[in-house]
Amino acid sequence: MTPVGFDRVTFSDGFWQKIRAQNAAISIKNVYRRFEETGRFAALRCQKQKEPPHIFYDSDVAKWLEGAAYLQREFPDEEVRSIIDEAVNAIVENQLPCGYFNSYFQVYEPDKIFTRRTEHELYCAGHLIEAAVALDVCGVNGRLLAAMRKYADYIYLRFYVRRDAGFTTCGHPEIELALVRLYLHTGEKRYLTLAKFFLDERGVREEEIYPFADRAYDQSHMPVRMQREAAGHAVRALYLYSAMADVGRIAGDEQLIDTCRALYRDVADKKLYVTGGVGSGWFGERFTIPYDLPNADAYAETCAAIALALFCHRLAQTDNRAEYHATLERALYNSILAAESANGKGFFYENPLEADARYAKYANTIPGFPHKPLLQRAEVFGCSCCPPNLVRFFAQLGGFVYGEEGEVLTVNQYVSSQVSACGIRLSVQTDIPFSGNVDIRADGRGTLSLRLPAWRTFTHCEVDGKHVVLQEIDDYAYFEVEGSTHVKLVFGMQPRFVYANERVRADSGRKAVEYGPLVMCAEQADNGDELFSVEIPSLENAVVSCGKDFKILVPALRLRTESSLYGYSAPQKQPFTLTLIPYYRWANRGENDMQIWFL
Amino acid sequence: MTPVGFDRVTFSDGFWQKIRAQNAAISIKNVYRRFEETGRFAALRCQKQKEPPHIFYDSDVAKWLEGAAYLQREFPDEEVRSIIDEAVNAIVENQLPCGYFNSYFQVYEPDKIFTRRTEHELYCAGHLIEAAVALDVCGVNGRLLAAMRKYADYIYLRFYVRRDAGFTTCGHPEIELALVRLYLHTGEKRYLTLAKFFLDERGVREEEIYPFADRAYDQSHMPVRMQREAAGHAVRALYLYSAMADVGRIAGDEQLIDTCRALYRDVADKKLYVTGGVGSGWFGERFTIPYDLPNADAYAETCAAIALALFCHRLAQTDNRAEYHATLERALYNSILAAESANGKGFFYENPLEADARYAKYANTIPGFPHKPLLQRAEVFGCSCCPPNLVRFFAQLGGFVYGEEGEVLTVNQYVSSQVSACGIRLSVQTDIPFSGNVDIRADGRGTLSLRLPAWRTFTHCEVDGKHVVLQEIDDYAYFEVEGSTHVKLVFGMQPRFVYANERVRADSGRKAVEYGPLVMCAEQADNGDELFSVEIPSLENAVVSCGKDFKILVPALRLRTESSLYGYSAPQKQPFTLTLIPYYRWANRGENDMQIWFL
Repeated sequence: MTPVGFDRVTFSDGFWQKIRAQNAAISIKNVYRRFEETGRFAALRCQKQKEPPHIFYDSDVAKWLEGAAYLQREFPDEEVRSIIDEAVNAIVENQLPCGYFNSYFQVYEPDKIFTRRTEHELYCAGHLIEAAVALDVCGVNGRLLAAMRKYADYIYLRFYVRRDAGFTTCGHPEIELALVRLYLHTGEKRYLTLAKFFLDERGVREEEIYPFADRAYDQSHMPVRMQREAAGHAVRALYLYSAMADVGRIAGDEQLIDTCRALYRDVADKKLYVTGGVGSGWFGERFTIPYDLPNADAYAETCAAIALALFCHRLAQTDNRAEYHATLERALYNSILAAESANGKGFFYENPLEADARYAKYANTIPGFPHKPLLQRAEVFGCSCCPPNLVRFFAQLGGFVYGEEGEVLTVNQYVSSQVSACGIRLSVQTDIPFSGNVDIRADGRGTLSLRLPAWRTFTHCEVDGKHVVLQEIDDYAYFEVEGSTHVKLVFGMQPRFVYANERVRADSGRKAVEYGPLVMCAEQADNGDELFSVEIPSLENAVVSCGKDFKILVPALRLRTESSLYGYSAPQKQPFTLTLIPYYRWANRGENDMQIWFL
Repeated sequence: MTPVGFDRVTFSDGFWQKIRAQNAAISIKNVYRRFEETGRFAALRCQKQKEPPHIFYDSDVAKWLEGAAYLQREFPDEEVRSIIDEAVNAIVENQLPCGYFNSYFQVYEPDKIFTRRTEHELYCAGHLIEAAVALDVCGVNGRLLAAMRKYADYIYLRFYVRRDAGFTTCGHPEIELALVRLYLHTGEKRYLTLAKFFLDERGVREEEIYPFADRAYDQSHMPVRMQREAAGHAVRALYLYSAMADVGRIAGDEQLIDTCRALYRDVADKKLYVTGGVGSGWFGERFTIPYDLPNADAYAETCAAIALALFCHRLAQTDNRAEYHATLERALYNSILAAESANGKGFFYENPLEADARYAKYANTIPGFPHKPLLQRAEVFGCSCCPPNLVRFFAQLGGFVYGEEGEVLTVNQYVSSQVSACGIRLSVQTDIPFSGNVDIRADGRGTLSLRLPAWRTFTHCEVDGKHVVLQEIDDYAYFEVEGSTHVKLVFGMQPRFVYANERVRADSGRKAVEYGPLVMCAEQADNGDELFSVEIPSLENAVVSCGKDFKILVPALRLRTESSLYGYSAPQKQPFTLTLIPYYRWANRGENDMQIWFL
């Protein structure tokens, strides 16, 4: 399956277009302002400051540039355009004659260039390369691509030809997938060679590792082809696996493809939050052990959910299995969407599935408390990788929607939009995620395949006004389009319980409520506190309210009265109406308790 | 109520005598050996070593000396005796002329004596004073008392008379309760004055605090009389509250007594584990917020449960309420007893209520992991306060059993033993905690009052062979003894569910099993893993097996088959027989999973 590029997909009014428009109007500018204030853009000018920039500031700006590139196509903006050009100029002008660019090392420790594996140089390079490709693809600015090709050539020279750098692979994967993008965009084979080289050299010798971590932290505990279990820092892991999927597909490397399938299975079967979040361990922001998915302590970094989506997107290019799109959809509508505030200005870095506002308040009174729960989104972080990652992700969303599989146009996500591919002009209009109605108009001649979401409770289909029983093959339904065809689909949405495998300690004996692709949650703002002891006996009488703010009202039980700390009789509860809202809308009304898993 | 001193209580064969005998034969010697190996005894000789002793080594040895004193009375042992004498000689010989003794400060930082509030000097002094009193009471060695009186006089001079020390109150309470003991033993009023001074000066000004903590950490966030919520480091807190209860009682200080009652209520109603453990937060070993009682992450330091018992013991001396003894009993049979291995050699510092062996193994692979669960007892720790605290606690257990309340002899705990008090010679024989049979023979003339345990499911009583309906007043039953009386009591024991207040997140929707005073647990060694998802629908068909190893067999349900990570149908479980053992016996068969709270 070849994804239809985001540049070929035109969004129309609907759920995602609102988010994308806000991304262009608010988020990208607000992220810019916070980055400007914190010296991230100034650092590109490579002049010594009192406070040196963080070693990964370049990557923050690069992700911003990448997002800005995508947005310029559809939402051109003079202000953003001039920021892009200035930033690109700064990079190009300050690039060393050899091609190297890093606003920290070349200014503050030029003698240490390419000597320390743990300091993100190739990670920053990777994001700059991705930005360069995006700016060129979108026709916004071609200068960065030339500069970054030069940089990539220099990396090729030092790491592959001469092999005289102080390390072989970077402590934070990213360069690998960036080099594949550069190869795909330029056709220059040596970038693919270098990407494959970085993959194959990883974990084969004892390279420098992080002092606070083990070798699995940066996936260098064994050769990547031998890795069958997702391990270590989740963003590092999933960027690496994404590159493995790319190289496996492009090189027809079955062993690498098979490794990616095994890694995906390990994540999807044992290490995935119901929200699509991954990397449960806050210490090391990492994958831990199977079924270790704590809720209040969930790390589930925003960048990790995005990286999971990128990995799924690549896996589907080799095998277009509905499951990959379903996992991407789970991450997209829940963990990823929840990471941005309703007003587009604030961002979560961590995405817990349960919030205890009292505990957060307590933790904040203790200096040195090792992991303080953040229950409010922030506009910028010291390590602010997530905000620009969200900006660039939402900006390229169109690229995850459609695919060309041989002669077949596949609809992998339902987004109100138009596309032309495989001889079909397609227009999709949908209320998803609030109702399961999908209206599809197809013109032309060809085959259309529609993914049937795993969450549907029933499927109703009319073609040109006539009810049709769908022929489902592996969760896709196929339609022959001849002339003008109108497909009306209803994917049944009812609030329903989802149960975690009982091996998940945190969710054992509990259940969550899903509605279509949405994981629902309860917030203190609607329901008062003590939400973790709320019991939902049944969803039979649940009422879905699609007013201004989507919510579901559910008859439930909660604590009745005060009682002693321990007692010999089961706690008595009283009925009340529980208000559930989509998880992605939580924490937009101040710091408060939140709950997903109920008794 | 005045407790009958441990020296007046003679234990007979039974549950506790076995533990006490092991304490004398094994534990005290083993703790000595580990302390000797780690330089704790050598430090008393006050000669500079390559490695300075920890600042609290003196307190470790002092607690050992205190325990050794109690044990010498009943289990005289030449080897232990000579260790005691040598240690006392070392202290006496190296005491500074002014009376000061501290094996760290006087050797390594003599110019810093009494300048740093956070470095345990008065804490160490307190434990040495307690040891001195115990050695004198037990007639083992009177030299230390003389030396420690001199030291206490010096503290009085510096802190109270001259007030020229570098701080006013010690960062680790202990001196306060030790001074009360010294006052009660010697009758010297200035020690009581000094104890009261230290209490009243705490929290009234901004003294030095620990860099990693807030002012509540060492209970100096407000004047102690204003404190109504248990806060901060749990051992510090409960040693402080114990001294407050002492001074309140002795001085008839109603405000102080009322404060202690409020603090007790806060602990018992909101911050107490079902095992009697307290101080749930591992960061700071402290009380956190109401109902924050995580199981796998429970800190519940052994010393904190002991300190809670000491506090209850003192509270009961002002109001002899059954509840205080019930809480002491809960801590005693569960958290405290579990802290020692079956062979008397190993000790827990932390006492979790749930063990996840796989997670512990994982955490051990990560360097710098902030809180690694310890699922096996150790013989010594870097900070090894708990092992000698257990030794001295079990050694003085007799002191917690009986009380004289006016003319009434009260039985507060049921322990096979003899005592003479209030005109009655009493002999108690019991199988508690394995069955609720208590056989009491009383001779003499007087009133006997028997605590009716909160855990009894029924009470059967025969006096001289005749069934009697008990007259209960506030959970005590009263008997007039005239000549020779034989009381046979049966306290009903059936395995029963105990429920935590639903405000306890960790236990919400779950229940534990109690049997008499014992909290039961399930271990992997008997049951396999995945114990947290075990469901106990009913205890009706539970079988109590009082063989060599006490256990309860319960029909239960567990995971049937593998299933996906998330699914729309409730998990299927299959019946099996769950083996429960007393919590205090856990972790005696290698590192394995353990569970107390079940679905």
